[in-house]
Amino acid sequence: MAQHTQPARGMRDFLPDDVRRRQYVIDVVRRIYERYGFEPLETPALENIETLTGKYGEEGNKLIYKVLRRGEGESSGEADLALRYDLTVPLARVVAEHRGKLPKFFKRYQIQPVWRADRPARGRFREFYQCDVDAIGSSSPVVEAEMIAAVSDVLQALGFRDFVVQVNHRELLTAMLEAAGVDAPLHGDALIAIDKLDKVGRDGVHTDLTARGISDASAQACLAAFEDVPAFDRLVAASPRGAAARENVTKIMELAEATPAAGHVTFTPRLARGLSYYTGAIMEIAIEGIGSLGGGGRYDGLIGMFSGEQIPACGFSLGLERILVVMTERGMFPPEVQASGPDVLVTLFDEASVPESLRLAGELRQAGLRVEVYPDADKLGKQFKYASVRNATYVTILGGDERARGEVTIKNMRTGEQAAISRDSVAQHVRASLQAPTSSLQE
Amino acid sequence: MAQHTQPARGMRDFLPDDVRRRQYVIDVVRRIYERYGFEPLETPALENIETLTGKYGEEGNKLIYKVLRRGEGESSGEADLALRYDLTVPLARVVAEHRGKLPKFFKRYQIQPVWRADRPARGRFREFYQCDVDAIGSSSPVVEAEMIAAVSDVLQALGFRDFVVQVNHRELLTAMLEAAGVDAPLHGDALIAIDKLDKVGRDGVHTDLTARGISDASAQACLAAFEDVPAFDRLVAASPRGAAARENVTKIMELAEATPAAGHVTFTPRLARGLSYYTGAIMEIAIEGIGSLGGGGRYDGLIGMFSGEQIPACGFSLGLERILVVMTERGMFPPEVQASGPDVLVTLFDEASVPESLRLAGELRQAGLRVEVYPDADKLGKQFKYASVRNATYVTILGGDERARGEVTIKNMRTGEQAAISRDSVAQHVRASLQAPTSSLQE
Repeated sequence: MAQHTQPARGMRDFLPDDVRRRQYVIDVVRRIYERYGFEPLETPALENIETLTGKYGEEGNKLIYKVLRRGEGESSGEADLALRYDLTVPLARVVAEHRGKLPKFFKRYQIQPVWRADRPARGRFREFYQCDVDAIGSSSPVVEAEMIAAVSDVLQALGFRDFVVQVNHRELLTAMLEAAGVDAPLHGDALIAIDKLDKVGRDGVHTDLTARGISDASAQACLAAFEDVPAFDRLVAASPRGAAARENVTKIMELAEATPAAGHVTFTPRLARGLSYYTGAIMEIAIEGIGSLGGGGRYDGLIGMFSGEQIPACGFSLGLERILVVMTERGMFPPEVQASGPDVLVTLFDEASVPESLRLAGELRQAGLRVEVYPDADKLGKQFKYASVRNATYVTILGGDERARGEVTIKNMRTGEQAAISRDSVAQHVRASLQAPTSSLQE
Repeated sequence: MAQHTQPARGMRDFLPDDVRRRQYVIDVVRRIYERYGFEPLETPALENIETLTGKYGEEGNKLIYKVLRRGEGESSGEADLALRYDLTVPLARVVAEHRGKLPKFFKRYQIQPVWRADRPARGRFREFYQCDVDAIGSSSPVVEAEMIAAVSDVLQALGFRDFVVQVNHRELLTAMLEAAGVDAPLHGDALIAIDKLDKVGRDGVHTDLTARGISDASAQACLAAFEDVPAFDRLVAASPRGAAARENVTKIMELAEATPAAGHVTFTPRLARGLSYYTGAIMEIAIEGIGSLGGGGRYDGLIGMFSGEQIPACGFSLGLERILVVMTERGMFPPEVQASGPDVLVTLFDEASVPESLRLAGELRQAGLRVEVYPDADKLGKQFKYASVRNATYVTILGGDERARGEVTIKNMRTGEQAAISRDSVAQHVRASLQAPTSSLQE
């Protein structure tokens, strides 16, 4: 009865070291977002299929995992449920459903997996976590500034120093495209082309723009505007909406300078962001040589899609999977996350010593230590070998002699040092030694 | 375009207060299990359908959510993936797949949602969390003792005092049924009937047993054996396997008395546990008047189902959803989990004060406080009303006067007390006041 034992295509098993790294990042994100007054929300993995279909465009629709009806309906081949595809549509549904229970300014974070039947590729999976913050109910630039502050704070808490928060505004891009003579129906196409500037370069974007039916002169004018900020500013200043948008960006940046994002924020005229639903400021976190670690913006039309009511909103999505890859490559995890072994392996000297050894393990755990008990009174050599494979920091031996003397023998597996410690002070001793790993075991 | 906004049938949205309670319990479970040397594992929500089918019996098969093939195959109505139904089958698959990377004694915990297309009922949902620990690779009674210790430690860390860990052994039940004259092919049926003793009472079980073809004399003998331990012991002592099992239970209980489970463990002859795969000791956590909060046991045949190899294993599953219900009913959550409001609401006095107010918010957050900034310079009355709705503990006011004097006005929303505090010491002050909530704001 041999069976396939790999996870399904595009899915991953997370072994203990993987989970620890993921959990570390998620815990930091949670802690920082909580400090900013964002509150946790969780929605079900399965949604009624009507909730999701028609929300992600034709391409998106194809990538939604659909769940067969149960019972009688199963043979019909009909789907009535679908797996969560992003965290924004469920948020919009929740806001419409629970409006009365939610505060006027609802600031939520949500860290949950989503599923997309995308073609698997390096770094692209069919199950992956999204990590979203959204602030609903206010159109004040304080919202954008706070959001930029929060994501900057998260990145700094994770150890990133070399990131830049790029800021732009959809209305500025519209004003620029108008001034460059791009017809309104082509604006969406133009933004998709411009969004690739960092990837494909100036010539690539020019080719793409003209291929999409934009004149050479308009394409040149757009690309020139991205070369320097004053040129861009002159182009957009002609339009009242452009001028208002520029003022909004200036305000957001000025406010962000009063937060932990200070020194990291930059006005970036070429920033376009792919998604069509943004209506105001747009933002992206970029690292030189790495690319984007997340992005977001203001979208005042989307949240109301379930309630009909127009509700202002601004959101940011951190690329959790990307952040994990970069942190792993750069070795940014603290030692306690990387070294996964137990603090102490408690050996079993003989059958008679088992209850007392369990008592010792209990005391060490009471002191907050991670303790594994070897399950059998095997030969000590075998137990030590296991301790070494498990990467345990300390090993305890509690034989008849030790018990008689009220002591425990402790071996530091890093230094090889071994010492007899009074039974009462073992926990305290190991804790102190772990905090100063180079210090001696001797009292 | 009004749409249904409720979650799908049998699914739940978790609003911030719900998530906080769930997260609190999960964090405690994680922390304690880590101390016992259990390591985190996560598996994908979607498994290949062959991985799950045929593992849960005919009833279970019907409750599995099946996912339609994508692309061309979608119209065939065929399913190729299925949603995780429990955490044990994925564990068995992972052990077979990653055996070489896992330690000889693999102790893992896993806290993830599972999905079952069960009829929704009070307290029964179609998406719910399981919270499993399993220790793989050893048949030592130390494993059971450590598992009993770990779950007892978790329950005590959550504030439970009145729980009992019931212990029994499958081989003991077999020996008892043999001694009572129940034919071997009826043992499975008999266990299902006996498992309901606490629910339906002695007469109910007697009726059920005889309805299943067990003689009145045998049924009487079984039920009498559950009345007192010495009677049970006499009945099983005749069989060598019964005697060995009794010795194993005695050993497990003796070892568990050397752990935080001391005083909570009891030998419970009537404990049967519904699942068919147990082969050794079985355990259940019960609270008088509440019922079961989880259970487990030794199952030496299950883990090998993917690798073919027989691997000893022992597991325990905590009923997370049940624990949450009981803790909510009993008011067992610490105040910081129940009171969800921000520590501080920072008001915006006027436009000019916004950057300085954001700086203040940053300092308070740096000190670890949860801080919400009101996004507009609305009338203060309106901002205070919002602070009150949000259940904020403190509100800050930073107007022109305060800025000129290098001060911040702070109002304690619990006591109504208001005071001007030197700007430099606001964070320190609020932190200290929060730790001693009845103390005065005055320095």
